[in-house]
Amino acid sequence: MVINRNCKIVDCTIRDGGLVNNWDFSVEFVQHLYEGLNEAGVDYMEIGYKNSPKLLGGADSSGPWRFLNDDFLKKVIPQKKNTKLSALVDIGRVDENDILPRNESLLDLIRVACYSKDVDKAIDLVNKFHERGYETTINIMALSNVMEKDLLENLEMIKDCPVDVVYVVDSYGSLEPSDIQYLVEKFMRHLPDKKLGIHAHNNMQLAFANTLLASQLGVEYLDASVYGMGRAAGNCPTELLVTRLKNPKYNLRPVLGIIERYMVPLREKEEWGYLIPYMITGTLDEHPRTAMALRNSPDKDRYVEFYDKLTTPEVPQKK
Amino acid sequence: MVINRNCKIVDCTIRDGGLVNNWDFSVEFVQHLYEGLNEAGVDYMEIGYKNSPKLLGGADSSGPWRFLNDDFLKKVIPQKKNTKLSALVDIGRVDENDILPRNESLLDLIRVACYSKDVDKAIDLVNKFHERGYETTINIMALSNVMEKDLLENLEMIKDCPVDVVYVVDSYGSLEPSDIQYLVEKFMRHLPDKKLGIHAHNNMQLAFANTLLASQLGVEYLDASVYGMGRAAGNCPTELLVTRLKNPKYNLRPVLGIIERYMVPLREKEEWGYLIPYMITGTLDEHPRTAMALRNSPDKDRYVEFYDKLTTPEVPQKK
Repeated sequence: MVINRNCKIVDCTIRDGGLVNNWDFSVEFVQHLYEGLNEAGVDYMEIGYKNSPKLLGGADSSGPWRFLNDDFLKKVIPQKKNTKLSALVDIGRVDENDILPRNESLLDLIRVACYSKDVDKAIDLVNKFHERGYETTINIMALSNVMEKDLLENLEMIKDCPVDVVYVVDSYGSLEPSDIQYLVEKFMRHLPDKKLGIHAHNNMQLAFANTLLASQLGVEYLDASVYGMGRAAGNCPTELLVTRLKNPKYNLRPVLGIIERYMVPLREKEEWGYLIPYMITGTLDEHPRTAMALRNSPDKDRYVEFYDKLTTPEVPQKK
Repeated sequence: MVINRNCKIVDCTIRDGGLVNNWDFSVEFVQHLYEGLNEAGVDYMEIGYKNSPKLLGGADSSGPWRFLNDDFLKKVIPQKKNTKLSALVDIGRVDENDILPRNESLLDLIRVACYSKDVDKAIDLVNKFHERGYETTINIMALSNVMEKDLLENLEMIKDCPVDVVYVVDSYGSLEPSDIQYLVEKFMRHLPDKKLGIHAHNNMQLAFANTLLASQLGVEYLDASVYGMGRAAGNCPTELLVTRLKNPKYNLRPVLGIIERYMVPLREKEEWGYLIPYMITGTLDEHPRTAMALRNSPDKDRYVEFYDKLTTPEVPQKK
């Protein structure tokens, strides 16, 4: 096995997990998670989204991790340790005036998530965040639904921009290890001067396998979340990465403590992970939104009917 | 991706799943499972163990699938369809006089599970079952704990015996894809005339990834169970294999029907799958028995204490 000595774990429990519970995490939980991840040697903690509430229709009932505020963050993490802090922004939802210069913020890394068609806008944001001193990434979502010609155009545009890391994102959890290998090799060929990252979903129980393979191929930034907490089928579990990457900087025990104290009770209240409707959207290479709607309905375990609905092409417009 | 056109799925839901619920499956469930697997195109159904109750300390409270009886089996499956039937035997627990000639039995395949040290005894049984007309396999368990020199001796002994299939068994769920590749390539080199099989466990969420990789490397017999039901962390899920092997003989829909009707309610009563104590024994490359005991105790979610216990070498004999 090839061991990647440069790997970095980016724990997304708060950001992607917030999609499960509407970012309803207590400050105490976030503080303990930060302590635990720091003890475990995890390199980055993505502590939320830095989108603008104005651009998302005003204030709502979401917790504070959806619209991170720098002053608030300084109260939550009064003393930063080794684990760096990251925030994600979405195209069209971030107000760039909200992004302070890095030396006035606790954030180290700003990640820009975009679809293939918006890579130009992502690069524009990256230019600004880079100027303000941040490390940056571009996370191209839903790669399994992008045509080769568009992807090559994206990579060509990205090649000369100042972004540090470009992510392979398996938004639908529909990619197998052979697909990951194909994409990673393509990204490496076309972006020889960029570091790469991977963000996997667990619809087909492949998030850890895909992430491990990517790291063996030289991908350095590995997204994960504790106990796999993330939207729908969830993510690559942080506990598996820290124990299996064979890197002495990582330590499993503090992650076990977080799971025992917080994640097991949380999983009893909130649902994520390998569930059949998510497996179905994964194998069909679709966004999980239909499966999420099913799980919120009384029909949540009617898998055959759901599968039939998604696989019937001849749907009349009117009945 | 390499697609293996010769792959065969061996569904172990009753046999390995029986280790979860003490083989307490109703005849109706087993009949519906057989119908569903047959419709799904699954090649084999392992319907239980064919060990002898006498050799296991006499009759007990286990269901009938632990000590399969040929007359009983004919009542359960009055009409065999395309899906063949398999039974597993253990060294020292099978009375070879219980094994009828194949033309008097519903069973097609008898699989012999053994540890490396008992491969001689497995070959002896295979010789007898082969003479009685059965397809046979040898499943070498706990390969991650076998020294190379012993394994090579095993393969040398097996090479010229009449067994049809030799299995790579990841008993502890501790193997990663790179380990599977190493073992499969070794088995292929030393057993050029044998077909290979794989039996994976899901302690580290790698059962499907390992099975998929094995099939791409040319392993033909792929063990699985519906919804992953099997001891401790369970097995490679049958539903993932039927939908992802890209073989037109397989069909996901009937497996979804079984999961919806039987496996979801069963999972509410019985526990299996990715749970932290099983992840811990997996990553430590140990038998899951300590984790199973923990899950049956009031301390079932005290992961840090459990991890500390298993990773402390200086255990005094007396306190």
